[in-house]
Amino acid sequence: MHNFEYYNQTKLIFGKGTEQKVGEEMAHYAKRVLLHHSGGYPVKSGLIDTIKQSLEKAGVAWVEFVGVQPNPRLSLVYDGIEYAKKEKVEALLAIGGGSAIDSAKAIALGAVDNGDVWDFYAGTRVPHKALPVATVLTIPAAGSESSISSVLTNEKGPWKNGLNHASIRPVFSILNPELSYTLPPYQTACGIADMLAHIMERYFTPEKDHELTDQLCEGTMRTIIRNARTVFNGGEKDYHARAEIMLSGTIAHNNMLDMGRIGDWASHGIEHELSALYDIAHGAGLAIVFPAWITYNIKKEVADGVQPLRFARFAAKIWGVDGAYYDFIQAAFEGVFRMRNFFKSIGLPVSFADAQLPTDQIEKMAFQAVRRGPLGNYTKLDKTAVESILKDCTV
Amino acid sequence: MHNFEYYNQTKLIFGKGTEQKVGEEMAHYAKRVLLHHSGGYPVKSGLIDTIKQSLEKAGVAWVEFVGVQPNPRLSLVYDGIEYAKKEKVEALLAIGGGSAIDSAKAIALGAVDNGDVWDFYAGTRVPHKALPVATVLTIPAAGSESSISSVLTNEKGPWKNGLNHASIRPVFSILNPELSYTLPPYQTACGIADMLAHIMERYFTPEKDHELTDQLCEGTMRTIIRNARTVFNGGEKDYHARAEIMLSGTIAHNNMLDMGRIGDWASHGIEHELSALYDIAHGAGLAIVFPAWITYNIKKEVADGVQPLRFARFAAKIWGVDGAYYDFIQAAFEGVFRMRNFFKSIGLPVSFADAQLPTDQIEKMAFQAVRRGPLGNYTKLDKTAVESILKDCTV
Repeated sequence: MHNFEYYNQTKLIFGKGTEQKVGEEMAHYAKRVLLHHSGGYPVKSGLIDTIKQSLEKAGVAWVEFVGVQPNPRLSLVYDGIEYAKKEKVEALLAIGGGSAIDSAKAIALGAVDNGDVWDFYAGTRVPHKALPVATVLTIPAAGSESSISSVLTNEKGPWKNGLNHASIRPVFSILNPELSYTLPPYQTACGIADMLAHIMERYFTPEKDHELTDQLCEGTMRTIIRNARTVFNGGEKDYHARAEIMLSGTIAHNNMLDMGRIGDWASHGIEHELSALYDIAHGAGLAIVFPAWITYNIKKEVADGVQPLRFARFAAKIWGVDGAYYDFIQAAFEGVFRMRNFFKSIGLPVSFADAQLPTDQIEKMAFQAVRRGPLGNYTKLDKTAVESILKDCTV
Repeated sequence: MHNFEYYNQTKLIFGKGTEQKVGEEMAHYAKRVLLHHSGGYPVKSGLIDTIKQSLEKAGVAWVEFVGVQPNPRLSLVYDGIEYAKKEKVEALLAIGGGSAIDSAKAIALGAVDNGDVWDFYAGTRVPHKALPVATVLTIPAAGSESSISSVLTNEKGPWKNGLNHASIRPVFSILNPELSYTLPPYQTACGIADMLAHIMERYFTPEKDHELTDQLCEGTMRTIIRNARTVFNGGEKDYHARAEIMLSGTIAHNNMLDMGRIGDWASHGIEHELSALYDIAHGAGLAIVFPAWITYNIKKEVADGVQPLRFARFAAKIWGVDGAYYDFIQAAFEGVFRMRNFFKSIGLPVSFADAQLPTDQIEKMAFQAVRRGPLGNYTKLDKTAVESILKDCTV
């Protein structure tokens, strides 16, 4: 276990009706707040009205900046920063999922900075402060509601870059599982793939000396999978299942599960190229890339004469593959097979063909993916390795 | 899952050599700090010197107040409060385990209050502020290093009362597993029983709709048990095992594992009477009481015609009892049997006889235990039930 610091200041306010607490919580941070959302579900559902009433009741003034899209765009962030500065807001309130929250985080950074906010995402400057960001979560997926992460797409590239910085960890997040009842099945499924991927990136560590966090990761993955089956088996409005999924998605990405661990993150790096180029949902991209990443590593370990123990354990603990009846190699491959089947069963693509993506840009994507150096920590992937993984995703 | 708020502001600074960071961290909170500890291990080991050097380097002045004993005493707290006020300290730094930390928390409450600090523990007044408390942990056990709890013994009673309040959650805690290498085996074992008990109190909830936190609790319990075996099998200085235990002990009691759950806490209530009266270690008391509490509940469920599913699951997931070969009742009892064996294997008593305690005060203890009302939530225990559990502990 590595030395680590764990300091998560996000206050989680979880449960039915909790959106009504947004005003009293926000009053601790701001007298004037920018509401940031898509303009879709939050408006249609009446959620925005509830939020505005709660803010007014608590004496918090608001202005609104709408139009967030999936894979949030830098151009909208630029406009948001200008608007936040003009309106002199003291905090951001993101309403939605990872896209709204990540976009709000970028605006929060830019609102207290005079340079180009993209610098922080490009890695050419390091941020040191941001306006407070709070969230009302409606899409359990990205875990951005209590994470230090923000991912932004620069349309000029297209480049999709991620930033991790403590200043953008939300000060509070309101999580009402009921707000996810009407999520379209595809979005629910993409969220599930996203949160599973966040845990797998942490789980596939190059080191062996992690027991507690192994167990915590495994328990959270099992919980997500079991409750996903409930939701997709007629349980769209099953509070229990939606609550388990929402809470799992939050802890999947707020560093609770990887205290002292080094994660991998290569699959995220590869997927970012996919969604930057084709604008597919991040979760769908991960359902395509991650099984291929695992397959690549099993094959590599077999070729190196190493037993794929990590992947056999993953198969046993997460997918119920009984190790007693298989050798480790068979068990590991059986795990990938079951994972792909699970993704398919909830309506996700597991190949370029499923997602109807062209396959003529693989070399370009591989080139882009490693432009800042080799990807991953479990194994280091160079351009050839990324290309080979992407090719394995095609059908 | 119940509505809940989770807000844990303790910064965990975990790993080798981290005690050297105490000065820079403390400088955020105070220019003058009261060091509070036993005067034993922290001095002999040289830890206090390291801490003082680090504080001096960071420009933080210190005064020292020593003499903490296991089951910390109210009389010492009174003296500490007087000293803290006289010396005008701005924060407390507890060095040690739960006793030093709980004692420091009580001093931190009293230092900003003009009444009797025992009122907060007796439940006749509610605290609203405290000086910042920080810790350097040397005994993984109580979880007080990131919890809102403090337990104090009033020698006049003797009463041992617990207080939970957000104001006494430590602002930062330094956890270096190496500092636990030289813990005597009995103290290591008591700590292990204490942290397991903290999780079991949460695990045995009256409700069924908790999956994620069930899994997190189970994973943490398995980690503790496995690594306890390593430490007691010649691994006193096994960094990995000590680190897994230390981190497990922290999350066992900082509300990470019981988000949205209602815990039981009857066994703690009963044990407090035992250690108030006989001054035995809290962990040893829990190793005696908890198996009897489980046995009581299995028998009660059987008598009520209910399958003891919760205890059968506990037996299967924690103690490896294979449900396929037993009925649920047998499995549940087998789990208790294995738990007692585990406690014995690490040198803990599992009965009054083992601990050489007299059995003539059982009725008095039962009377005391329920003086503020019935104990527990899994089942409500009245005086007769507590007496019956205590009697089951005698041999």
